[in-house]
Amino acid sequence: MKRHKSTSFALLIIDMINDFQFKHGDMLLEHTKLIIDPILTLKKQMKEQGFPIIYVNDHYDLWQADFDKIIDRCKNDGNASLIERIKPQQDEFFLIKPKHSAFYGTALNTLLKRLKVETLIITGIAGNICVLFTANDAYMREYQLWIPEDCIASASEADNNYALKMMDHVLKASIRKSGDK
Amino acid sequence: MKRHKSTSFALLIIDMINDFQFKHGDMLLEHTKLIIDPILTLKKQMKEQGFPIIYVNDHYDLWQADFDKIIDRCKNDGNASLIERIKPQQDEFFLIKPKHSAFYGTALNTLLKRLKVETLIITGIAGNICVLFTANDAYMREYQLWIPEDCIASASEADNNYALKMMDHVLKASIRKSGDK
Amino acid sequence: MKRHKSTSFALLIIDMINDFQFKHGDMLLEHTKLIIDPILTLKKQMKEQGFPIIYVNDHYDLWQADFDKIIDRCKNDGNASLIERIKPQQDEFFLIKPKHSAFYGTALNTLLKRLKVETLIITGIAGNICVLFTANDAYMREYQLWIPEDCIASASEADNNYALKMMDHVLKASIRKSGDK
Amino acid sequence: MKRHKSTSFALLIIDMINDFQFKHGDMLLEHTKLIIDPILTLKKQMKEQGFPIIYVNDHYDLWQADFDKIIDRCKNDGNASLIERIKPQQDEFFLIKPKHSAFYGTALNTLLKRLKVETLIITGIAGNICVLFTANDAYMREYQLWIPEDCIASASEADNNYALKMMDHVLKASIRKSGDK
Repeated sequence: MKRHKSTSFALLIIDMINDFQFKHGDMLLEHTKLIIDPILTLKKQMKEQGFPIIYVNDHYDLWQADFDKIIDRCKNDGNASLIERIKPQQDEFFLIKPKHSAFYGTALNTLLKRLKVETLIITGIAGNICVLFTANDAYMREYQLWIPEDCIASASEADNNYALKMMDHVLKASIRKSGDK
Repeated sequence: MKRHKSTSFALLIIDMINDFQFKHGDMLLEHTKLIIDPILTLKKQMKEQGFPIIYVNDHYDLWQADFDKIIDRCKNDGNASLIERIKPQQDEFFLIKPKHSAFYGTALNTLLKRLKVETLIITGIAGNICVLFTANDAYMREYQLWIPEDCIASASEADNNYALKMMDHVLKASIRKSGDK
Repeated sequence: MKRHKSTSFALLIIDMINDFQFKHGDMLLEHTKLIIDPILTLKKQMKEQGFPIIYVNDHYDLWQADFDKIIDRCKNDGNASLIERIKPQQDEFFLIKPKHSAFYGTALNTLLKRLKVETLIITGIAGNICVLFTANDAYMREYQLWIPEDCIASASEADNNYALKMMDHVLKASIRKSGDK
Repeated sequence: MKRHKSTSFALLIIDMINDFQFKHGDMLLEHTKLIIDPILTLKKQMKEQGFPIIYVNDHYDLWQADFDKIIDRCKNDGNASLIERIKPQQDEFFLIKPKHSAFYGTALNTLLKRLKVETLIITGIAGNICVLFTANDAYMREYQLWIPEDCIASASEADNNYALKMMDHVLKASIRKSGDK
């Protein structure tokens, strides 16, 4: 990743701790499996360059600031190995969110200001819901956006493509693969 | 507590997991010791009547949704027994906040709407800082307020009294002892 | 419109005071002309039933609470008659917004609570931008949504249709024509 | 005023368009008369140096972005000459607010970011209500604060002094006279 002089990056990982127990959840799970490797590679590269990793995740109606409980609540036969690979590490940030957007009802904006972040790299699921609405909230708060297209997934490919198109046209996001620095 | 037909209550406990490592922290600690018993009694009564208990606490710059870590970070010789008594239980809600107000950068408002809360009972520390600014944010969101005066503490008694006076006059809070139902 | 016992409605009219001076603005203007009559008819019906009409509009970088100035700033040969027909009347509410969503940086949520609104009827432009993102912000704040499909317009029909589909599937909005009460 | 290289200032004028029709309103009016000259002098100096002037004012339940209407609604025998002197000019910003804080339900934060403001100079009334709660909201958003003590007024001198003390101690504001650059 090119690091512009006055720009600092953060990697956002949205809703990857997920039980997939909802309509089309099985389809979303299949598409999610394909983005784990690209996200983990990107995360490794970001950490090597000293950029922060920030998980923002649904709290599954627990309303308790306790990520382990959320992981316990979500794990099932279908997603256990996925969660084991993607779950946050001790030196990473993790916040819970109550609604679609990672900015709504969370300390994300305050954290980003503290870290002097100017460009958000958004990854995770679902691309046309929580990723899209987080991207718009980031745009309204005047962050630059990079959406690595191989790091977001939606229930259907059409939904994912429309979300990418919207983030490109409406939110001025840079849409490119995670390997295209 | 009288339960009015169309009114639901919640008990807020603010910043009681605290390291007291700041200017006048020793004075605040002394005053805080005096409000533990009234808060615990009130909490017990509230739970018996089925009302929710909600902790909102500073996260000590950890930016991680993990209350155990915050407790570990805060404990010291001066406050260990206090924290042990007041810390949240498994059936209670706990959220982290990044700034003075329990509403700023948190899911508190969303949680209160989910619980259909109309009257907030605010307890904790410091009375003239986080309690006062939380109370104003609650007032702007049109919650009714009850501040049990024996359940908030500030570094000085004068500060505590002025905060109570402001919440009474400006925020239309009911100011009375926790035993006065 | 069926008025359910415990439900109150408000009609939102978004960004209809518009200069259309942007990419594809001419296409959006053509589509906007088609929704004026349905919006005006719906507005008349709503007012007859005593429901509030709320304009929320971009402020064209004026940062001044002055709707007349915004109208002056926007009027041109292409839209003058349109603006004349749709502009707010003295007994209607009007707020300015700085960004896509009608909730972001505005008093809309406070006004809706004051009016005890539970169901928002969203109309205006562009369907896939300001209408969609306003609808998501309304959904996160737990309003019921009705999107009269003949009262929103986007630059392209495909964009408009995808926005309607998203508001239907993701935001649980009722999508039906303004005449289908 | 010293202008530090990387720091930009804005002058906030809060609730000076006021009808004073509330408890102790007559006392507040008397104190407000004393701060008009210092505010106007400071405003003149700020404008000469190219800094923005931003009015944020209660909207008197009109919910209409129309400052002239608010002025009409507020004017009475007691305050007419005061309003005439202090009202905003065409090249100044003015926003309406629905509640105590100038940040709550307004585009103020977005405007300040657009103007690259880092230090807020807060003036107006009432010092211990809208000024204090605006100052805390500014502090939580990490603005530097300067409160010119001769440019804020409250119903009683004691209230004004306590507010100044709180903004000094708790919100790290610089408290000094408007002439002390």
